Amino acid sequence: MALTPFIDGDRLWSRLESMARFGATASGGVCRLALSEEEAAARAQLIDWGEKIGLTPSADAAANLFLRLEGTDPSLPPLLLGSHLDSQVTGGKYDGAYGVLGALEAIEAIRAAGVVPRRSIDIVSWTNEEGSRFWPSMMGSAVFTGRRKLADVRAIRDNDGCSVGEALDALKRRECLPERPLGFECAGFLELHIEQGTTLQNAPATIGVASGMQGKRTFLVHVAGQESHSGTTRRGERKDAFVHATSIVGRLHQAMWDEEDAVRFTIGMFTVKPNAPSVVPAHVVFSIDLRHESEPVLRALGDQVQAICTETPGACRVDVEELVWDAPTAFPAAMRNLIEAKALQAGFETRHFVSPAGHDSRYLNGHCPTGLIFIPCKDGVSHSESEEITRSDARAGAIVLANVAVELTS
Amino acid sequence: MALTPFIDGDRLWSRLESMARFGATASGGVCRLALSEEEAAARAQLIDWGEKIGLTPSADAAANLFLRLEGTDPSLPPLLLGSHLDSQVTGGKYDGAYGVLGALEAIEAIRAAGVVPRRSIDIVSWTNEEGSRFWPSMMGSAVFTGRRKLADVRAIRDNDGCSVGEALDALKRRECLPERPLGFECAGFLELHIEQGTTLQNAPATIGVASGMQGKRTFLVHVAGQESHSGTTRRGERKDAFVHATSIVGRLHQAMWDEEDAVRFTIGMFTVKPNAPSVVPAHVVFSIDLRHESEPVLRALGDQVQAICTETPGACRVDVEELVWDAPTAFPAAMRNLIEAKALQAGFETRHFVSPAGHDSRYLNGHCPTGLIFIPCKDGVSHSESEEITRSDARAGAIVLANVAVELTS
Repeated sequence: MALTPFIDGDRLWSRLESMARFGATASGGVCRLALSEEEAAARAQLIDWGEKIGLTPSADAAANLFLRLEGTDPSLPPLLLGSHLDSQVTGGKYDGAYGVLGALEAIEAIRAAGVVPRRSIDIVSWTNEEGSRFWPSMMGSAVFTGRRKLADVRAIRDNDGCSVGEALDALKRRECLPERPLGFECAGFLELHIEQGTTLQNAPATIGVASGMQGKRTFLVHVAGQESHSGTTRRGERKDAFVHATSIVGRLHQAMWDEEDAVRFTIGMFTVKPNAPSVVPAHVVFSIDLRHESEPVLRALGDQVQAICTETPGACRVDVEELVWDAPTAFPAAMRNLIEAKALQAGFETRHFVSPAGHDSRYLNGHCPTGLIFIPCKDGVSHSESEEITRSDARAGAIVLANVAVELTS
Repeated sequence: MALTPFIDGDRLWSRLESMARFGATASGGVCRLALSEEEAAARAQLIDWGEKIGLTPSADAAANLFLRLEGTDPSLPPLLLGSHLDSQVTGGKYDGAYGVLGALEAIEAIRAAGVVPRRSIDIVSWTNEEGSRFWPSMMGSAVFTGRRKLADVRAIRDNDGCSVGEALDALKRRECLPERPLGFECAGFLELHIEQGTTLQNAPATIGVASGMQGKRTFLVHVAGQESHSGTTRRGERKDAFVHATSIVGRLHQAMWDEEDAVRFTIGMFTVKPNAPSVVPAHVVFSIDLRHESEPVLRALGDQVQAICTETPGACRVDVEELVWDAPTAFPAAMRNLIEAKALQAGFETRHFVSPAGHDSRYLNGHCPTGLIFIPCKDGVSHSESEEITRSDARAGAIVLANVAVELTS
């Protein structure tokens, strides 16, 4: 394989470690929330590395960050390679960052090999993939591809009241980058990512080729009661938002339970107000994250949520917002076959499977031919400070990415 | 009644309004957490009002604040009158503040009437009655009366990691008050408070005489699982602290349910970590506030908590801490009879009943003869920004307090 000798596994590993210092946590993980100080510092580091090898930075109105290697025919739509730099609150070092730094390593190899692509190649870091500060997730790619409106997204606020719009404007003032239009034409998008599951580890295999992505629906449920005194207020007089919400949660768990364990149903956020030991709670807001590989199943389950939430008996007012309805998606066969071929040429065992996790690839797939490449992560643990990958797997992913990228741009 | 004409209902009302500006919320309530900037400002206002009429401020090591009207025989143990100035996160204007400002109005009347008491009278504001920033509640009176050790209390931290000790030291540096010893001998304690229930409103009656206080047990339950990715982690592989905690909560609600609605069982605080929509929760901490008038019932119910929490099936580790075990208490008949007599003499209808809410009176009652006087609050709503009382009821309570105080100090 032409580019294999030019992929420097040590350089890639050392950059992963350097990047993990931005937002490093005491437990060895990363808290690098979207549009935070920590993410801004990580972006500055990426820009610095890119500029040192002649890449040109730019950003669009959603702060999606691009670093361009100019091709011999700059009039052609570019190929995008990348992922995201933001993390969960208690995230790991590799979710997202590996895809961005793997893309940088691929560009390093292309340059070192003396390959001059015809098409330009842009490394991309999509804004707010995780959705843990500003919900919902995959915000930058959704805006880029027209799935969400910029104005809608700008109005979303974090728990401290800061809006996406304020955070975007502050970052823009700080970075002062040339502006790229949203949704410019692309020749393709390739995303390298840790698997976040155990398929590759169990196979075992080094390279995963995503055949598609399971569907996802997300909801936000608001339960409004009335605060009152825990010592004086009789049960019959209370409007206890916590009691009502947990009763809804119990019914949801029953309704979403499946024998074969194929439904992914998660209540990850559940916030009580005022959250004081001797006050009957007045408000609860909780999230529902529902995923399935089958569109009919996802439709049938998700369509029950509104009724279960509003029909559970209780004295509180319940409102349900559906934030995301993403049907399962399939990646183009041509892209999957190309990834497969380049992996086999480089001597890596592969597996094809549906991605249970969501990635920016989902939205890009509606915009341009998209491929999603996985490497193993230890025991499938992710969205956790204890995420682990191996140096050789990290190198393998970058090798496949670089070779696919050359094929698509020459 | 000697002092009735000297109680100035307008002055009292205007001070209640002024005090409510410290930590005022947009919804018309108060957020004046214990040992916060807002409470410090409220204390400074109280000291200022006290000093203007010749009262001498001092504080003990738990920041319990005293304002002394010197008696003709300062060697006699003083009578204490007061309550607290801290509030719940979404608290009202009257819970606590009314007892402190009612005491100040009583002193104003005593002075205006030219009465010179033999015993000194101290207005007192107990530290952290609410327990909403630092848990458990009634911390200042517990330390003053020896129910808790100062060193133990100093080690308790709020959600931002600030300890009671740090907050006490900062307040002490700011106020520079003469120090009073903890647990000094007292001739008695009188607390004026809004009822926080509907007994007086329903009677109707103006003055409530607390015959005793229901018992209370509080617990903190820690559920520890493992964070993981909501899209990739199968239900069978999860250690979902939220699912486990809500399952425990369901069993607790079943076990604590009583036909006659005499058990007060509240989960007011329930905190999920990391609390992100697409992360399976790793930790939940929740509070249990259990109250009953009967000691045997409280014992039997509370003794089930540990077993229910730890024996509910689930993949997480569960730890239960019992923080408070306060048996029901009765106030001395002599004090109740004196309050009753003074209320009737002033022309107010009275009711005697067990206080369902906890107050600093509980701990003082083990230290010196204690009386707890209630006035009505609208619809029993308290621990809420919509707390309401009437100006005439506020005046009535201060009249009774002043007349009882004179009787006990002359």
